[in-house]
Order: sequence, then structure tokens, then C-alpha cells
Amino acid sequence: MTTTVNVATPGGHYPIHIGTGRLDHLHESVPADVTAIALVTNPTVGDLYAKRAIAALQKSGKTVITITLPDGETYKDWQTLNLIFDGLLQNRLDRKCLLVALGGGVIGDMVGFAASAYMRGVRFLQVPTTVLSQVDSSVGGKTAINHPLGKNMIGAFYQPIAVEIDIDVLHTLPEREISAGLAEVIKYGLIIDAAFFDWCEANVAALRALDPDAIRYAIQRSCELKAYVVGQDERESGLRAILNFGHTFGHAIEAGMGYGEWLHGEAVGCGMVQAGALSAATTGLDADSVKRIHDLVQAIGCPVVPPNLGTERWVELMQVDKKTEGGHLRFVLLPKIGQAVVQGAPLNVVRDVLHKTAVPVL
Amino acid sequence: MTTTVNVATPGGHYPIHIGTGRLDHLHESVPADVTAIALVTNPTVGDLYAKRAIAALQKSGKTVITITLPDGETYKDWQTLNLIFDGLLQNRLDRKCLLVALGGGVIGDMVGFAASAYMRGVRFLQVPTTVLSQVDSSVGGKTAINHPLGKNMIGAFYQPIAVEIDIDVLHTLPEREISAGLAEVIKYGLIIDAAFFDWCEANVAALRALDPDAIRYAIQRSCELKAYVVGQDERESGLRAILNFGHTFGHAIEAGMGYGEWLHGEAVGCGMVQAGALSAATTGLDADSVKRIHDLVQAIGCPVVPPNLGTERWVELMQVDKKTEGGHLRFVLLPKIGQAVVQGAPLNVVRDVLHKTAVPVL
Repeated sequence: MTTTVNVATPGGHYPIHIGTGRLDHLHESVPADVTAIALVTNPTVGDLYAKRAIAALQKSGKTVITITLPDGETYKDWQTLNLIFDGLLQNRLDRKCLLVALGGGVIGDMVGFAASAYMRGVRFLQVPTTVLSQVDSSVGGKTAINHPLGKNMIGAFYQPIAVEIDIDVLHTLPEREISAGLAEVIKYGLIIDAAFFDWCEANVAALRALDPDAIRYAIQRSCELKAYVVGQDERESGLRAILNFGHTFGHAIEAGMGYGEWLHGEAVGCGMVQAGALSAATTGLDADSVKRIHDLVQAIGCPVVPPNLGTERWVELMQVDKKTEGGHLRFVLLPKIGQAVVQGAPLNVVRDVLHKTAVPVL
Repeated sequence: MTTTVNVATPGGHYPIHIGTGRLDHLHESVPADVTAIALVTNPTVGDLYAKRAIAALQKSGKTVITITLPDGETYKDWQTLNLIFDGLLQNRLDRKCLLVALGGGVIGDMVGFAASAYMRGVRFLQVPTTVLSQVDSSVGGKTAINHPLGKNMIGAFYQPIAVEIDIDVLHTLPEREISAGLAEVIKYGLIIDAAFFDWCEANVAALRALDPDAIRYAIQRSCELKAYVVGQDERESGLRAILNFGHTFGHAIEAGMGYGEWLHGEAVGCGMVQAGALSAATTGLDADSVKRIHDLVQAIGCPVVPPNLGTERWVELMQVDKKTEGGHLRFVLLPKIGQAVVQGAPLNVVRDVLHKTAVPVL
């Protein structure tokens, strides 16, 4: 069974196909006027799925070249991005080529940014292979690489021509990756759909076991909710900022620990617990909801105790966040589950929350 | 006297102010909600004009930081681009900052690309200081850096919020730079406005002497003509390609000689002479027009004899051009002066023209 979510933004309209066996149908998303295809992947995903992906893409009748990037968030930098440009230029791919991103969020972000910049813009197809990238980085057109001074600081808003989500491939993921991805799933419930948060609580075991019906629905609903938000606000001037719930804390964890130590979704999961505590102190989130957030993040298998970076280092790291305006710290906060606001928080309250969440007192 | 040309494209509307003393009025182009300003320049231009530019920008009441990049086309690469990101992040400039490009085409291209990619897009103001950048890179939103395998291969279509053209600054340019810039000026006559080409022929001495009325009109008319073409076709899918008249040959000269040996405008000037000869052989351009192109390129002080790269190396270098589709060489050609078409040319005819223009037989 394949479900389709249609994404409409000012920058592009495209379908997300979600189902089993999509990997063998990639040619269905290759436009007729494409001159050549570059499949970009990493050794881990490539060993498992590149052969099938290439066979499917070749059914379009186009030449397919493969570019393999080193695996991991630590390689989400310019040097690695340049390997894509090297491969495209060495093989003389022109501006009517198609890039295909086969991998997780790192591959998707890098291939998307490369597609936006190669010859000032070529088309790309997303084939996300992790829970996180399937629910998150495949919708919204955010592409980027990291800079030593901040995560995702260099990038573009750039939409794929289509997203192909094969839920079968999740079975080869480490359990930790699944937990990290589910953190972003429950985020959608928290910020915009209380009923979906309830559903996640009720189905946490099925989700962790990758039950096909549960996981397809979770991905579909997450994509729908994100598409709704992004459709209202492609350039992140207003509503879209709520998608960063848990991310101000999460980005600080990633930068403070060194990119790659914590998975992005793990950092966001823990960051949501912290943002829940900050919401209690600022927007009046009730204690029961704070506990429900903590418990569900824990139930999906993510860490709930932040690393001890030192309070001042925490604040410094959060100030690099892209939401910061004029040095003023801004957060996505919840008045209640299913409703989010973006606002500043007094520094002493933030410090207090950092202390409180640093040990498991919740 | 200040003239304004308004540019309207799907990606943005902005004014180009052309006149004397504009450098002291930069604050007039700073939006009220800007949080901080980064002036990006090189040591050559910076020594002459940074102080005045900073003083003008500070009249807006904003903090101004300065980022100085090494000077020259050879530095139009990722390493140098990264100096901009380093400076912006070290100074914690947020997504409401304004980048100001004070310099020639290299500075404009790099700052524009940096603005498109920093935090996925911040605003920038163009202050072009060469004839070439005033007539060319300040209109159309093309930004890019070079790759060892090709010029301008990595970039974005990204529009400035305004362009401030101070014609006074041209007086400190080397004569060679003026000649190179005038090559792009006469290009507009050749591809779209025969009367403007006649005017350039009649005013070549005044243009080379930087007569204020002549140079302001030449810049204004070039900007108007380019704005017209770009307004029709922002993403270079059709009409806009005619702006590349002389560029397929020109880019090969620049890549073959090593970036920075020939000035871009010099390579384009010589490339227009070659494209004129190729037009005679393919689109029926008459011999008198071929001679007029040759003579005016020579009269503005640009080289008219291409470097001897070897015919096969020439063809190889031209195949990397972004206009290439499926390995097929495409050129901008003139049926007559003031009218341009984009079409393929048989390889033997191209080889023949390469031989014919390699010695001064015209």
C-alpha cells in the first residue's frame, strides 16, 4: 500500500510517496527531460540499497553515476559537499541532470544544498532511509551544511521534485536511530495536534517495533502536519518556527558535545523535555503535561537528561541559534500540548531550567 | 545627478541608483529592521573607499563590521567564501543582518552567494566599483564561485535589495579594467539594441575617458537592457541565455589560461570577436558587421586575438560551459547586429573559426 502526501509551497509542489517497496519504483519519479542521474549515498546505506536504487533508476533509460560520501554528521561540511560537485563535474553532468539523495538527513541536506548550488540549481529526488529524515528533512526544503561555529548555518531553501519513502528500509536501522526519529514524530503532536500525541502514547510499542500500519500512519501524519506548517510559511518568518520545538536546546547539545556524539533526534528529544520544563515556567504548561512529554520521550528510547555543559556554555551555544535576533534568546514554548508559541524567555529562568533538567528530578 | 533603473524579476524587485557621490548615501538603502551590517571588500578597494562606505552606512545607526577578502578572480573559491561565513558567525550576525558588497564582480558574486546561503538567506546590497560589475553583475541575481573544473559552477540566483553605483569610483580603476568593462557594454548593443551599438561606436573615446554623461548613460542603458532580458527569464531557461554572447569562448579562455590571467571582460571581448566569426559561418552575419565587432572591441582596448590553447583543448573547455546539454555545444550567435539566437554549431565549423581567429586575419 502506498500513501501520497502532496506538499504545496510557494517554492514548489511535489508528492511524497510512502509505502513498502518504493525503492524499486524510483524511475516513476524521473522526469523525461533528465539528461543523466547522480545517485548520492554513503557506504552504509549504499551497501544495503544502492544496487536496487540504481536498477530502478536505470529503468528510466538514463545513465546513472554514483557518488559515495563518508557517513555521518561530522562529514556534513564543505569538504564533503565538494565531493558531490567534483563527481558531477568530472562526469560532465549538465544543468538538466537529476540528483538522487539515498540516505538519512545528512545525505538529504547535503544533496539538496548541492542541487540548489550546482550550476545555480538542478533538480533532486529525496529517498530518505531513516525515520528522522522520512518525517522531517524530506518536507520543507531546508538544506544545509554545518560550520565549525554552528549547525546548518550555510544552506538554502530548495524543494525536491518528489520524495520516495520506502518504509521497508527502516528494518536495517539501529534501534537508536529509530528512537531518535520518533522524537521528531511526537514533536508534531506536541506543537500542533494533541490527538496525534495521544495516538503516539497509545502506539509507542508498535512504533518502536516498526509495525507497518503504525509507522506508515506516523510518517504520513508527520508529513501532513509539517506540510501544513511549511505551506503557510516557507521562509520561516512566522509559524514555521514552531517546528523548532526542542531544537534550541537540541542544537546546543549537538554543538556542545561535538556533532555526531548525540543523534540529532536524541538531542531534540532531550531538548523537548527541557523546553517542556521551560514552558511550565513561562507559558503555564501544567505539570501533568510536562511529565507526559518526559515519559513519552523516555518511552521511545531517547535520553531525557541533558549533558552537563556548564550553564554559561549552554547559554553561549544557544545564542548562536538562527532564531536569535539581536542576541536575544527565543524559544518555541507550549501553553498546552498541541499548541506552540515563539517567544523570549528571561535568562534567569532559562538558567534555572538548565539546572533543574540536568538531574532527573521530573 | 542620479538616475534610477528599476529591476523587476519574479525573485525580487529592486532599484539601481546610478550617479556621482552615491558612496556617501549608502544608508539610504539600509532597511530599518536590519540588526547589523557586514561590509565585505578587498584590500585594493577597501583602502580607497571602505572608510567612506562605513561612515555612510553608520548613518543608519547600525553596527558595521568589515570583512576583507583577498583580491582577484583566483580567490573566487570556497576557501575565500568561507572567510565571509567565519566573519559573520564570529560576530554573531543573525538572519536579519545586511551584507554589503563593495568591490568588483568577484566581490559581488561571492557576497551574493554568501548572502543566499548564510542562514539560508540574508539580505545584501551591491556597491559595484568596476565598469564590468556596474553594468553586468549588479543586474540579474547571478551569484557564484568557481570550481577547479569550471567557472561559476557553484552558486545561486539571488537578488540584492538595491544596487548603488557611484561612477566617481571608476577614476581609480586601471585602464585595462575600464576596457574590459566596456566589452560587456557593447555586448548589449550587439545582442538586443543596434542603435546602442551605433552610439557606443560614436562615443568610444568619451567612454574610455570616463566622461560622466557618457558613462552614466552607458551604464544606465546596459542595466535597462539587461533588466529587460532578466525580467523575461530569471532562471535562464530561454531568452536570458543571449546575455552569454561571447561567453562560451570567453570562459574557455579564462579556464585555459588560468583564472585571473585575462580579465573576464577581456576574455568576453575576444570571445565576441570569435562569436562574430562563428555567426558569419552559421547565422549569416555579414562581413561588415563582423569587422565592426572586431574594430569596436579593439577600439575599447580589448584583445582581439585569442590565445593558442590548441583546438582540442578549446573544444574540451567549451564543453564544460553551463549552456551545454547532453555534451552538445551551443552558442549565442548573431543573424545581425542587435539580434541574437542560441543554437548548436557543427564541430568542424567551430574548429575552423578557432583556426581563423587565432591569427589576426580579420
